[in-house]
Amino acid sequence: MARTPLNTDEINAALHELPGWSFAGDALTKSFTFADFQEAVGFMVRLAFHAEALDHHPSLHNVYNRVEIALNTHDAGNKVTEMDVKLAKAIEALT
Amino acid sequence: MARTPLNTDEINAALHELPGWSFAGDALTKSFTFADFQEAVGFMVRLAFHAEALDHHPSLHNVYNRVEIALNTHDAGNKVTEMDVKLAKAIEALT
Amino acid sequence: MARTPLNTDEINAALHELPGWSFAGDALTKSFTFADFQEAVGFMVRLAFHAEALDHHPSLHNVYNRVEIALNTHDAGNKVTEMDVKLAKAIEALT
Amino acid sequence: MARTPLNTDEINAALHELPGWSFAGDALTKSFTFADFQEAVGFMVRLAFHAEALDHHPSLHNVYNRVEIALNTHDAGNKVTEMDVKLAKAIEALT
Repeated sequence: MARTPLNTDEINAALHELPGWSFAGDALTKSFTFADFQEAVGFMVRLAFHAEALDHHPSLHNVYNRVEIALNTHDAGNKVTEMDVKLAKAIEALT
Repeated sequence: MARTPLNTDEINAALHELPGWSFAGDALTKSFTFADFQEAVGFMVRLAFHAEALDHHPSLHNVYNRVEIALNTHDAGNKVTEMDVKLAKAIEALT
Repeated sequence: MARTPLNTDEINAALHELPGWSFAGDALTKSFTFADFQEAVGFMVRLAFHAEALDHHPSLHNVYNRVEIALNTHDAGNKVTEMDVKLAKAIEALT
Repeated sequence: MARTPLNTDEINAALHELPGWSFAGDALTKSFTFADFQEAVGFMVRLAFHAEALDHHPSLHNVYNRVEIALNTHDAGNKVTEMDVKLAKAIEALT
């Protein structure tokens, strides 16, 4: 099911298709660096549409031109699920 | 001065450096087409930062993946001024 | 059906629940005025989420602190349908 | 000067005018909670205009309807300066 925690093999298989993403702190994480703050904000706005479409929301941390993303699933005890993999793939498609 | 109407030669010279822009209806205009609505919105948000930075604001018309821009200067009797050329160049740099 | 043109009585009934909206040019329209450009952009971004959620997109025209919205349905020959009423209600809920 | 670290008395005086803000981790901090993710994103976009206008950028952390802000000044050894107080006041004016 979409909100069942993935096991280590499943997470590793997902990371194989997600360049630059890591598994850390029980989350899928990636840090993006943009040309400036405006591009970072533009990225977060476009990302927000995908989060709403999936009804699945990231942890976003922005300072100037950097955006650090951490994804896990609240309803699955803050473990990584298929929803996080879906959102990570949607985020990758933006860049 | 930045808010003095440009003459025809000045407008033509500016258009020479602004591919895809036209002079129509006393404004500098261009129509942008994006992959989808989300990209169009992301573009308008990034454009908005430049409009604020210049304190000069476009006419924006958005339907789905299209954004039509018209630029002229209210304080110059809605004629094209150097401010419009600056904003057009800033917009071009976004795409 | 959601994408069948509404008749005049249906449009009038809808307008009764949509203060400030009009029927003009075969569309539901309203002009919003905000404190400044930044508030207008913030409004358009929040509106964009609802447009995406409904997969139904407005005609937006922004100049500085004004946003003019026109709603009709491309797939219904650019007539007003129930989708436009839904989007208008979602927009009203933002303000 | 705007980018000189404030002393404890100056920080306390600033906090007196900034309801809900704290001094923690060498930063001015506040956590905002909105109705939903869309409102949180709308807030971050409007905040971003002020950050650009001041050329001073916050640390933003967003999860769903919460936005945690931390403000200090990179050029002042990550101490709180007058710039952070200005940005905090601009943020307050948004809500």
